[in-house]
Amino acid sequence: MPAGQEGFFAGLRDAAGEDWRQYVAHPFVKGLGDGTLPEAAFRHYLVQDYLFLIQFARAYGLAAYKADTLAEIRAASDGLKALVDVEMDLHRAYCADWGLDETALEAADADGATLAYTSYVLERGLAGDLLDLRVALAPCVVGYGEIGARLAADLSTRTDGNPYASWIEMYAGGEYQAFMRAEISALDGLAARRGGPARFDSLAATFRAATRLEAAFWQAGLDAA
Amino acid sequence: MPAGQEGFFAGLRDAAGEDWRQYVAHPFVKGLGDGTLPEAAFRHYLVQDYLFLIQFARAYGLAAYKADTLAEIRAASDGLKALVDVEMDLHRAYCADWGLDETALEAADADGATLAYTSYVLERGLAGDLLDLRVALAPCVVGYGEIGARLAADLSTRTDGNPYASWIEMYAGGEYQAFMRAEISALDGLAARRGGPARFDSLAATFRAATRLEAAFWQAGLDAA
Amino acid sequence: MPAGQEGFFAGLRDAAGEDWRQYVAHPFVKGLGDGTLPEAAFRHYLVQDYLFLIQFARAYGLAAYKADTLAEIRAASDGLKALVDVEMDLHRAYCADWGLDETALEAADADGATLAYTSYVLERGLAGDLLDLRVALAPCVVGYGEIGARLAADLSTRTDGNPYASWIEMYAGGEYQAFMRAEISALDGLAARRGGPARFDSLAATFRAATRLEAAFWQAGLDAA
Amino acid sequence: MPAGQEGFFAGLRDAAGEDWRQYVAHPFVKGLGDGTLPEAAFRHYLVQDYLFLIQFARAYGLAAYKADTLAEIRAASDGLKALVDVEMDLHRAYCADWGLDETALEAADADGATLAYTSYVLERGLAGDLLDLRVALAPCVVGYGEIGARLAADLSTRTDGNPYASWIEMYAGGEYQAFMRAEISALDGLAARRGGPARFDSLAATFRAATRLEAAFWQAGLDAA
Repeated sequence: MPAGQEGFFAGLRDAAGEDWRQYVAHPFVKGLGDGTLPEAAFRHYLVQDYLFLIQFARAYGLAAYKADTLAEIRAASDGLKALVDVEMDLHRAYCADWGLDETALEAADADGATLAYTSYVLERGLAGDLLDLRVALAPCVVGYGEIGARLAADLSTRTDGNPYASWIEMYAGGEYQAFMRAEISALDGLAARRGGPARFDSLAATFRAATRLEAAFWQAGLDAA
Repeated sequence: MPAGQEGFFAGLRDAAGEDWRQYVAHPFVKGLGDGTLPEAAFRHYLVQDYLFLIQFARAYGLAAYKADTLAEIRAASDGLKALVDVEMDLHRAYCADWGLDETALEAADADGATLAYTSYVLERGLAGDLLDLRVALAPCVVGYGEIGARLAADLSTRTDGNPYASWIEMYAGGEYQAFMRAEISALDGLAARRGGPARFDSLAATFRAATRLEAAFWQAGLDAA
Repeated sequence: MPAGQEGFFAGLRDAAGEDWRQYVAHPFVKGLGDGTLPEAAFRHYLVQDYLFLIQFARAYGLAAYKADTLAEIRAASDGLKALVDVEMDLHRAYCADWGLDETALEAADADGATLAYTSYVLERGLAGDLLDLRVALAPCVVGYGEIGARLAADLSTRTDGNPYASWIEMYAGGEYQAFMRAEISALDGLAARRGGPARFDSLAATFRAATRLEAAFWQAGLDAA
Repeated sequence: MPAGQEGFFAGLRDAAGEDWRQYVAHPFVKGLGDGTLPEAAFRHYLVQDYLFLIQFARAYGLAAYKADTLAEIRAASDGLKALVDVEMDLHRAYCADWGLDETALEAADADGATLAYTSYVLERGLAGDLLDLRVALAPCVVGYGEIGARLAADLSTRTDGNPYASWIEMYAGGEYQAFMRAEISALDGLAARRGGPARFDSLAATFRAATRLEAAFWQAGLDAA
């Protein structure tokens, strides 16, 4: 890991540099902040995010398989359970508020950006070990928290009458921020157990590629509008 | 599937023939029934079964990854959750009754029979699809239910003063029997979706090999006494 | 499989319908035929195809692992060997003719379309069995043969002075056409061993998604020009 | 890695301690050296070793999939090719000299010890990364070389009239010894790229478990006599 980093994740984020900035400050994200994002773009995103969550649940299943210890299995089991029993219900309820009922969600096909990101994450996890898998997942888990916090702190973010205010609140809120910090901490701990300086460049390449695929996921929303 | 079978699992069980009988009527099982099993054999089994459950949990994680539908992911998630949050606690409590505390369980190494069965199940699941995986798991899940029911129904089974009576009750009891029937039903349904006559021989070979490895798991208990 | 099909692959191709046509008759392909494809588009394609071949080799390694029989292992071993010892050398020589030396090839990053297709193929192969894997690979292996043959048979294809004439000849040539037919035959045989009508819809969905990702691979070439 | 080691493999071997000694100096091995091994034990071993080689070939396929670089893919491809195109033919010819024809080899079932070792190696490789896989394979690849060299150097080894002399020569010979040294060197190099002190204990546990399973493979030969 480069000298002077606060931790393993901080090192990955630094190494992703401009790619990370283009993801967390993507025009889609700016449109969420100032409320100018076309509704069609957001709806496309919501449907694809639902399909993404299903694959994300499979990634937690894979993490349970790849675990070395009972504690790691338990952590993956809790994450999987939270996704399929809580997050997906919340997501469906949120989609319903936007006029997207379950039929619409179930009928949708994953678009290219969704297939690309989810396949990439799972494939990296299968080719490598649990650390490769969790590094590939990190741009999503941590990035959404950073995006939420940045938007909430940004003076140009519109709160009154912004249809995306509740989305921002969700990811800027205490619960998600705590989840994000726990994820960073778990990743740093896992890197201490399975990482080492020699693996850093390879892991940073995975993180950067996944970050780009997340930015492409935003872009697919914009392109659909 | 051979003509005249009641279902896919019944076909697997029939095809395993004498190997299945040697597993469900193994001397270890008879010793549970008449109470003559040496305590050292049972203690060895309990410790190895704990290590087995950890790997079993990983297999449920793998099943969640291998799932094609949200319903399959949920089923695997529920199974994984039940294992790590309920079954393993029950197992630890049961072990404590036999004088095996958590330190003893954590310190134990998987013996050859445990490594063989758990590695085989996981490897078959990785080489093949969800159906290959669940067929490899079936001798355990279903076999224990059949063993419990057979012992409970067997007139030669000793109930008074049999130190293994509670073990028999657990697997003969309504809860486990319902779980076993649900597993058979799920397996039959999965075979209808991903199986077909051309796969039967290959799946039956997996089932038979896993059945033998389960019998070797019993034998390792006897050999340790 | 739908009634009246000549074989399993023919059924997949039919089920992919319009998606298959958009892949094999993509504007990129038309530009190869009439020689109007911008050179920059072709060069981008050549570099990405090199990176694709590396991942394709990994897919053959995975096929060797997923094999059930020694004959299947041998077939995958021969495919892998041909890729890394012959095809990649030919590809490098071909790239050199277009002014792309090894340094340029090694320095390139996989673009989104390449990551998407290669990750998708490998992930499907890992989640499922050998049949899932080979179905995901088929749009590439067979599609290139069909494209070559169509272009060679198309009266509007320019041969004199078409810089892409040698590309067309390669895939329309007897050697590749024989390889394509062998692949179709191997796929039909594998489907007979591991397939069955109940799996067809799921396999057809994989084939269609992979076909779309191949079309996106062409499109990425055009977009780069 | 413990201080003072010559390299990564040497560290694994030291950490396996008594388990390594029991494998390389197993009674089966001693019986090869002094010619007292029952022929039935050797014949059992030869058949199981043939079945082992098939799974070993699958492990090389998996290594090609798990590779990070084209050089690693090529190395795995060469290993796979050598196994299925050269080693297995040599093995079949050697078996024929002992009266075991191809029909006998094809008809045989893998015994418990073979299933255990091959499943363990493949599963460790799938759960972890390429380093986990190659560490699990190392007791076989390197151990046979050490056994051959020890027997050849041992004054108590019988050469005249020892039916196993050609077996000893094969593994003590320059070709296999060079292969063994190349494997150690490749493993040390891979550990430098993907290892690190924090992974050593986990890798050493894998190596030790695989070493025990190799010893059990010898024992299964003796038990069959």
